[in-house]
Amino acid sequence: MNYDELLERSRDVAARVLGRGVPADYIPALACADPNDFGMALATVDGEVHGVGEWRKPFSVQSVSKLFVLALALAHGGTSLWRRVGREPSGNPFNSLIQLESEQGVPRNPFINAGALVTTDALLSLTGDAQGAVVDFLRAESGNPDIAVDPAVAASEAGHGHRNAALAHFMASFGNLHNPVDEVLAHYFAHCSVTADCRDLALAGGFLARHGLRADGSRLLSRSDAKRINAVLLTCGTYDAAGDFAYRVGLPGKSGVGGGILAIVPGRGAVCAWSPGLDAVGNSVGAMAALEDFTERSDWSVF
Amino acid sequence: MNYDELLERSRDVAARVLGRGVPADYIPALACADPNDFGMALATVDGEVHGVGEWRKPFSVQSVSKLFVLALALAHGGTSLWRRVGREPSGNPFNSLIQLESEQGVPRNPFINAGALVTTDALLSLTGDAQGAVVDFLRAESGNPDIAVDPAVAASEAGHGHRNAALAHFMASFGNLHNPVDEVLAHYFAHCSVTADCRDLALAGGFLARHGLRADGSRLLSRSDAKRINAVLLTCGTYDAAGDFAYRVGLPGKSGVGGGILAIVPGRGAVCAWSPGLDAVGNSVGAMAALEDFTERSDWSVF
Amino acid sequence: MNYDELLERSRDVAARVLGRGVPADYIPALACADPNDFGMALATVDGEVHGVGEWRKPFSVQSVSKLFVLALALAHGGTSLWRRVGREPSGNPFNSLIQLESEQGVPRNPFINAGALVTTDALLSLTGDAQGAVVDFLRAESGNPDIAVDPAVAASEAGHGHRNAALAHFMASFGNLHNPVDEVLAHYFAHCSVTADCRDLALAGGFLARHGLRADGSRLLSRSDAKRINAVLLTCGTYDAAGDFAYRVGLPGKSGVGGGILAIVPGRGAVCAWSPGLDAVGNSVGAMAALEDFTERSDWSVF
Amino acid sequence: MNYDELLERSRDVAARVLGRGVPADYIPALACADPNDFGMALATVDGEVHGVGEWRKPFSVQSVSKLFVLALALAHGGTSLWRRVGREPSGNPFNSLIQLESEQGVPRNPFINAGALVTTDALLSLTGDAQGAVVDFLRAESGNPDIAVDPAVAASEAGHGHRNAALAHFMASFGNLHNPVDEVLAHYFAHCSVTADCRDLALAGGFLARHGLRADGSRLLSRSDAKRINAVLLTCGTYDAAGDFAYRVGLPGKSGVGGGILAIVPGRGAVCAWSPGLDAVGNSVGAMAALEDFTERSDWSVF
Repeated sequence: MNYDELLERSRDVAARVLGRGVPADYIPALACADPNDFGMALATVDGEVHGVGEWRKPFSVQSVSKLFVLALALAHGGTSLWRRVGREPSGNPFNSLIQLESEQGVPRNPFINAGALVTTDALLSLTGDAQGAVVDFLRAESGNPDIAVDPAVAASEAGHGHRNAALAHFMASFGNLHNPVDEVLAHYFAHCSVTADCRDLALAGGFLARHGLRADGSRLLSRSDAKRINAVLLTCGTYDAAGDFAYRVGLPGKSGVGGGILAIVPGRGAVCAWSPGLDAVGNSVGAMAALEDFTERSDWSVF
Repeated sequence: MNYDELLERSRDVAARVLGRGVPADYIPALACADPNDFGMALATVDGEVHGVGEWRKPFSVQSVSKLFVLALALAHGGTSLWRRVGREPSGNPFNSLIQLESEQGVPRNPFINAGALVTTDALLSLTGDAQGAVVDFLRAESGNPDIAVDPAVAASEAGHGHRNAALAHFMASFGNLHNPVDEVLAHYFAHCSVTADCRDLALAGGFLARHGLRADGSRLLSRSDAKRINAVLLTCGTYDAAGDFAYRVGLPGKSGVGGGILAIVPGRGAVCAWSPGLDAVGNSVGAMAALEDFTERSDWSVF
Repeated sequence: MNYDELLERSRDVAARVLGRGVPADYIPALACADPNDFGMALATVDGEVHGVGEWRKPFSVQSVSKLFVLALALAHGGTSLWRRVGREPSGNPFNSLIQLESEQGVPRNPFINAGALVTTDALLSLTGDAQGAVVDFLRAESGNPDIAVDPAVAASEAGHGHRNAALAHFMASFGNLHNPVDEVLAHYFAHCSVTADCRDLALAGGFLARHGLRADGSRLLSRSDAKRINAVLLTCGTYDAAGDFAYRVGLPGKSGVGGGILAIVPGRGAVCAWSPGLDAVGNSVGAMAALEDFTERSDWSVF
Repeated sequence: MNYDELLERSRDVAARVLGRGVPADYIPALACADPNDFGMALATVDGEVHGVGEWRKPFSVQSVSKLFVLALALAHGGTSLWRRVGREPSGNPFNSLIQLESEQGVPRNPFINAGALVTTDALLSLTGDAQGAVVDFLRAESGNPDIAVDPAVAASEAGHGHRNAALAHFMASFGNLHNPVDEVLAHYFAHCSVTADCRDLALAGGFLARHGLRADGSRLLSRSDAKRINAVLLTCGTYDAAGDFAYRVGLPGKSGVGGGILAIVPGRGAVCAWSPGLDAVGNSVGAMAALEDFTERSDWSVF
């Protein structure tokens, strides 16, 4: 099968399970998403782009932004970042608070909320504008100037952000946030509220498939650092389901509660699948099914 | 560089850090190991075998056996095993007990002690002889009939086995052990006490590089199951350092407190490095350094 | 009201709520108890004994025995026992395992199962016969020679004792059990399986009301130690409901899943209430209600 | 011995251990306290007041204020408060966060920080001025109009209040704070920063010794509620050392990191001891020693 046939097949497989997912409902902007929406795009390292379904329909990237925040913080500031955030799986949700306490305010990895608050704080210190850095990078890699923060979503996140405020204050009590808590939270809510589509994200993830090279051929990260981000994505990128995602899909990937999942195939390309309906741990049911089918049928797996 | 040059280089890199490791000392049989020992072997899917250092010196495989117990239990009994053991990282050591309680006696994954007690119990039910099944498999794959349980080590493990007995009784209280606790423990201590060398283990791990095919070409596991074991190895195979191992080495791997680490390169081969000195979390300092160097210099990484 | 009127009133109050309790069902011997049974006895420091309902019907004392094991271990061995067991509330059930791990095998207090295994181990070392020491003490204080271990209950406890075996092995791994795990468990299951009635227990608890003096006037414990056991009973005697028991009843007390609760009024006497139906945390619904009513109406409260 | 002799004796006992304590140092206002200061006052239910040492030297009451916040919230709002805060010991410090998560934002008891934030929020809703209500009450009961919030201490607390902000936001995420987080924190920091002396606090605690009656004879709380607050004080009033405090002192009591401890003897009176040097869990070394000696020598113990 060629890429288009593979994508169509994956869409058909996903279609059967869309009804099992439920869109995130903690903020109105996400709750009103249509659970029947499904899109998927693939971008190869040599420039091919393929898509199926609603692959050009913008959605809220949510936690997928954490991948870009990490990469940009490492690119601007180097590996000293790893003194402030770990790279081990967090085990389970409530564990994260115990762990923050027993490990002196150092979050387990950059893809749980606490860790992304630290990388956001670092990127803010390094660039003066964490959210702007993320938006600029996404626009440049995808070639889509329309990518932007949705202010209504960001405001809504802030209005429901007591949990993240608790995490931020807790880390601040250990001295692991360097900027004022309110500023860090504002940038965090903003970059989670970026709107983009499957094509945009597949293109923007290309630097991890190209071993650190940006779309224009310039180097963002060393080959070694790109490899390492992929490793952290595989072990920690999908919250409490990282093991299950590795087992079923077998790729480094990052999911968001907007329903998007961006997966990387080192040396080959990047795939982004999206559907708003989530499973119990917050991963898109349709995107998971599509990616699982895709890697089972293609040779796009790392294992 | 060819394989022999790569191995020699990795040995040189490892040599510099051997002094930082300390052999396990909870039982005499391990405590008397020579921390300066180092060996490494590589077996490709097309039959080449290369080695360096003490690659033919037998050592205690310890937790590396958990990989074979899982594979054999899946091969004999199928995927219903996953109802009794999860495949998510455990987060951190003390978490495992809380987690066993809150998840009703189902261990997080087959590579923590609790999980390996469950897979041992399953293999015991399926074959009537869990330790025998492991030994037979290792002998067949490696062609080395001298591989055997070291009875002195097994006795010593049993004599210091209160922690594992606690875990076993705890799971039995949830009905997640089907054989008598004492029998399960005996088989568990036995297969951990198998003695083998780097060459043996690199050959025995070949089925995971060959997508499920044994050394004689017969199928042990489906391609999909082999891929999935590799995924679980990568996310959970090196205890609390799975994230760090993925970050530094970037391969599915299983470590043991005897100092051995067996790593898999899907489609390419398997590598076993060994040195008795351990770091704080129980992984061999020399083996980690050698494997990290090897994957940095070769193209043998999954990322 | 005189004591008999107070007891009758408390029985009437208890009668209204008996239907809300459910007898323990983890072993058959307890499951077949009649949830409508209720008894209550009061023994004053000056020798008066009063009773109501089924106060002379023997029942399984279960965890109430932990009070006597602690007192005897302190009487025989002195306060060095507190190096092996703490005297702080345990917070909540699953916490006990985390706590055992983080506090190196030292249980939080002598009234959780782990703590009572340690005091049983200590009493076994000190007397050579922990269960015998408990039975002898109960017989002597109550004057009832028929008090004995029910072998059927003890066997049933042992057959369902994986949890306690797990705790015992776990503490043994820290060196905090000095006798073989199996022996400690046998004595523990035995003294939990003692059969006695409300009158027996009220009399046997008298030494804590008499500031350390036994029924025959001899001294078991110093005034200070008796006061201190009462303090530990109040803060830790009723598992996860110690706070609620203190709030509602306001007395030092020890409950058991057989449905008995023995409460102490320092300087005044001891009260034992019993009814087999338990609430969600394992305390007798009827006994709690009766004791709460009794202390509200009498001046028998410490607060 | 009469009261004055008892107090002098307790002061002498305390004097020997003052050097073992260290004043709280998280804010400058507390760090500069003189560790050799010691004061103790006793107020009986029939109006006698006795004191020794620096009993008229004002200090920062800190967590002792939590007792008054609870009493006033119950007095104004009734027992529905117990739906928002529990009355069980919290076990250990880090447990409180896990527990907040697993018990849906309901703190274990009103004397841990999380619980006192809830009672402060309740008192704020009920009176419109939580800190004012506390100050007014303390002035009225002690007859000392100089009792007031120290604004420098309050500002300092706020500047180091990330932990409490984290707890407040976390509970707000469960809907268990009804006023804006910033307002609740401001009132909380204010009432913790009240300055009073040993005499003031011993007099202000009298309502709990008088079974609910205020100094002027009017009723603040029912006899039953007063008894119950004493019970909660005994099981939860001294953080992670509640068991140890009950064991050594045997009285309901509340400590603060300013070095004060207020203890209640139901029906008899209240005692306040103070010395700035703290032990590892935050209780005053000198005040603990003095209270332990006092209850050992007097008959002022509940056990």
